[in-house]
Amino acid sequence: MTNTNPYYAVIFTSTHSENTEGYSDMANQMETLAKQQKGFLGIESARNAIGITVSYWESLKAIKNWKQETDHLVAQQKGREDWYRWYKVRICKVEREYEFFKS
Amino acid sequence: MTNTNPYYAVIFTSTHSENTEGYSDMANQMETLAKQQKGFLGIESARNAIGITVSYWESLKAIKNWKQETDHLVAQQKGREDWYRWYKVRICKVEREYEFFKS
Repeated sequence: MTNTNPYYAVIFTSTHSENTEGYSDMANQMETLAKQQKGFLGIESARNAIGITVSYWESLKAIKNWKQETDHLVAQQKGREDWYRWYKVRICKVEREYEFFKS
Repeated sequence: MTNTNPYYAVIFTSTHSENTEGYSDMANQMETLAKQQKGFLGIESARNAIGITVSYWESLKAIKNWKQETDHLVAQQKGREDWYRWYKVRICKVEREYEFFKS
């Protein structure tokens, strides 16, 4: 991912309800769509008991635009109605970072 | 978790190497130890192809202290030698958050 500094992270943590029909397809669609947004930098996801998706953005404006993107609004609504028991969204400013690669 | 504002998040993303012997036990020990640190607010983890652990802290000082905690330093060293192929650490300031609960 692009190493622009400063940039922003959206930490989305969630637990599923019993009904997850259609969730995977929608999650894949939303990831594809997110990657097409202006200001998108990267996305990372994992799910066990809890799901964590972190997306990275160039600016708060890019995050706001993505939140209000039409198809994403439909997905959010469907998520609240069907798929999620709970979720929490944290908008964060990345202040510092470091990385390790096995040599 | 305590809802102090502002607070900080450490996003730790990683991929494993072939050798993960002893990793789970150490991860559990480190989670237990993190929870005992001053300024600790919460921790969330999930792992599939990528592992994501987000820990939450009251201050940058609390994050720095945890990074330098003796047993944690040993775990970090072992992680670089054996368990991780790659990791990235992002220190973030949580600027805004919202939450949804199924009614």
